[in-house]
Amino acid sequence: MKILITGAAGFLGQQLIDRLLSDGVIRLAGAEPVPVDGIVGFDQVIGAHRDPRLTNVAGDISDAATVEALVDASVGAVFHLAAVVSGTAEADFDLGLRVNLDGTRVLLEALRHRGERPVLLFSSSIAVFGGDLPEVVDDRTTPTPQGSYGIQKLAGELLVQDYSRKGFVDGRCVRVPTVVVRPGAPNGAASGFASGIIREPLAGLEAVLPVSAQTEMWVASPRAVIDMFLHAIGLPEAAWGWNRMLNLPGLTVSMQTEIEALRRFGGEAAVARIRHEPDERIMRLVRTWAARFDPRRAIGMGFRADPDFDSIVKAYVEANPGAVGR
Amino acid sequence: MKILITGAAGFLGQQLIDRLLSDGVIRLAGAEPVPVDGIVGFDQVIGAHRDPRLTNVAGDISDAATVEALVDASVGAVFHLAAVVSGTAEADFDLGLRVNLDGTRVLLEALRHRGERPVLLFSSSIAVFGGDLPEVVDDRTTPTPQGSYGIQKLAGELLVQDYSRKGFVDGRCVRVPTVVVRPGAPNGAASGFASGIIREPLAGLEAVLPVSAQTEMWVASPRAVIDMFLHAIGLPEAAWGWNRMLNLPGLTVSMQTEIEALRRFGGEAAVARIRHEPDERIMRLVRTWAARFDPRRAIGMGFRADPDFDSIVKAYVEANPGAVGR
Repeated sequence: MKILITGAAGFLGQQLIDRLLSDGVIRLAGAEPVPVDGIVGFDQVIGAHRDPRLTNVAGDISDAATVEALVDASVGAVFHLAAVVSGTAEADFDLGLRVNLDGTRVLLEALRHRGERPVLLFSSSIAVFGGDLPEVVDDRTTPTPQGSYGIQKLAGELLVQDYSRKGFVDGRCVRVPTVVVRPGAPNGAASGFASGIIREPLAGLEAVLPVSAQTEMWVASPRAVIDMFLHAIGLPEAAWGWNRMLNLPGLTVSMQTEIEALRRFGGEAAVARIRHEPDERIMRLVRTWAARFDPRRAIGMGFRADPDFDSIVKAYVEANPGAVGR
Repeated sequence: MKILITGAAGFLGQQLIDRLLSDGVIRLAGAEPVPVDGIVGFDQVIGAHRDPRLTNVAGDISDAATVEALVDASVGAVFHLAAVVSGTAEADFDLGLRVNLDGTRVLLEALRHRGERPVLLFSSSIAVFGGDLPEVVDDRTTPTPQGSYGIQKLAGELLVQDYSRKGFVDGRCVRVPTVVVRPGAPNGAASGFASGIIREPLAGLEAVLPVSAQTEMWVASPRAVIDMFLHAIGLPEAAWGWNRMLNLPGLTVSMQTEIEALRRFGGEAAVARIRHEPDERIMRLVRTWAARFDPRRAIGMGFRADPDFDSIVKAYVEANPGAVGR
């Protein structure tokens, strides 16, 4: 069984590759676990991983010939993580449309014409919710994206939904919470500060908090997200039914909760490295995001969030020893 | 003021042209009415209308160069009606995507790069609702399209929404009820029987009713739809706010109600021309459609449906004297 991962050089892609290589097996669409014979890691740049089972390919996800060449008959499962993140999609409208919408469509077309119907995990986002939202977003809340990223992700979900209904693919879209603590350098995501105020102070660096400490967000750790990706692609198709769009479980945390966790792991010195610099532009944007969910359907399907924010920080510290305690 | 109409050769396009030529003026985005100096009627074929103020252009809506050439600086308003209808979009998946999604995007791109921000009316459909719906669909009900047509219309709405938010166009999407009584020959719309059982018997022809007489649908007359198009494009932008998607008012009618109206206008002889031939495939499809709406937001914005089904039939008979009473 060969697995294609788009966005493989991104940090979730790299963690997913780690996990698949170390597990050595994968459960797909309710079948018995099968060995991971090979992984094709596709991105615009070559990822850092090296392994005999891994083939790194660089290219443009919106180019049909490139993507068709990736999707040969031996590819039985696809994790579609490639995306231009929120801040970048807002700043570069054309790039966002090309990667987030065209890229998804090009991939779906290639899979449709591949012969055997493959199983596809599409990494969507809670950015499909925004604006005038109820106190708690539940499974019946209408997505009303307030940014190009959310619009493009939702349009991509609709395509996955229809390609699945038509029997071209067996697609599953999961709306991922804000991923915290994201390792490495800050990226173009507008939500980056939620990771930054943990990651940077633990590394001895200064971090800016551009929103009030009372600001709440809906978050999940990278490990929980990878677990949920694997759960999503492993469920029998019947567990999804006609509705291929799903709000994932997460945790509602305030930035104050994050700061308190930082104090427990890094002490007062770490907390002192957070500079409070309210930025009205970012605050206005963050206020349109959903922070409280009732993800009942996902819970019923067996998806699980992190138990609490301290375990998120603990997992980050364990997984990134070199990035902590300088 | 020049006006572009896509789908101009379709029956709503032709009625809209009639109306604009006879009104001679149009109100756009809350401004004072301006004269209709010219209409560009675009479709894949040349429409039947001839008038010195009308230029008919035939071409492919998904071809960027064609559409860019249409949208010159003198075009101040666009009615985007071009679409592959539901039955056809389901039967020819690629054609549906190309016309309904790519066509909308190509038009939006051309308008974005035109210079001055034009006002755009996008004719969407209640086909964005389907499947496991509440008894009454209201303004908060999540669209869950169950066919490619509804998926493509909803994805098009999302693009119009985002192009409007970005300030590229001033877009307004209206979800049109099933249009009854549609004149002329049957088209590829799966809902065609709702017009057929009035139109054909009144013309002395046989019509097939493939669903039970208890089946309900959400309908509006062509005249009411044209009125609502003009109202939608005439409202000030502030009346729309950030939310550019709207469920239009209509009437809930059962096929039995239609048959009773037919009896009043065409007598028993007309009713006897309806052949009841339940078709399980069509019934399954129609059961996924929304038939009852609470279009509160649209009512508050001044949109109005037909008063009752008899006035719909009366308007049809008056507007199509040649098609009745043979």
